[in-house]
Amino acid sequence: MDLYNDEYFMNEALKQARLAFEENEIPVGAVVVCRNKIIARAYNQTEKLTDVTAHAEMLAITAASNALGSKYLPECKLYVTLEPCLMCAGAGFWSQLGELHYGASDPKRGFTQVSQPVLHPKTKVSKGLMAEESKKLLDEFFKKLRN
Amino acid sequence: MDLYNDEYFMNEALKQARLAFEENEIPVGAVVVCRNKIIARAYNQTEKLTDVTAHAEMLAITAASNALGSKYLPECKLYVTLEPCLMCAGAGFWSQLGELHYGASDPKRGFTQVSQPVLHPKTKVSKGLMAEESKKLLDEFFKKLRN
Repeated sequence: MDLYNDEYFMNEALKQARLAFEENEIPVGAVVVCRNKIIARAYNQTEKLTDVTAHAEMLAITAASNALGSKYLPECKLYVTLEPCLMCAGAGFWSQLGELHYGASDPKRGFTQVSQPVLHPKTKVSKGLMAEESKKLLDEFFKKLRN
Repeated sequence: MDLYNDEYFMNEALKQARLAFEENEIPVGAVVVCRNKIIARAYNQTEKLTDVTAHAEMLAITAASNALGSKYLPECKLYVTLEPCLMCAGAGFWSQLGELHYGASDPKRGFTQVSQPVLHPKTKVSKGLMAEESKKLLDEFFKKLRN
């Protein structure tokens, strides 16, 4: 049995999202996996860093490139709890990401709202993994915010 | 006579692009202006930082937010020598940028290749300022790279 499967990695991304939640950041988490090993973990830190570019995926891609010493990540898989926005999908394009796995869809700002291809043509995409848990965490966050 | 006009600021962005050129980076430069004052200057550093997210605009937006202590930049103008890609336009969206002025167009990776609106609806856009100088610098760079 392979313990280190897509669910395992997405669950690790969810743990990152929960860290964001605890710090009053919109709860999105990401991990980057290379050769079955997590080489980067990150969660949304736009509030703490006062920086709209500090989305979980951006921080994870930067950290993964640092870990590998390479701008390009064709052998890497990015697991993120929410569908990336155009900024993050654009970063995925430039990094030539091998695989993108996202959980919940973002019908408002997700990159699939754009009809043209945004990711690198070689990037494989899967969606929906643990989407319910991810969405529940986001819903809880916005409910807390409103109260 | 107002010395600090759009041309002045775009010229400052071009100076940043030339710094990138000297460091063997794709020569794109950017400045962020708030209340007629430059609060951030940056040039592309993807090679030096081994990081695809280190485009001039991304670094300039992050630096501007740092300078202002605000995630949002509705009173700021971003001057950049080349049309932003989707990643950078996406960052511009999140920052609610007041104005975007870009020089040369990027018919391959520029954000206007996407038919849907990518920037914030309130962001005013102008293009073409000093486009020739900007393009010439890019052409020189890629010619040098090929030789």
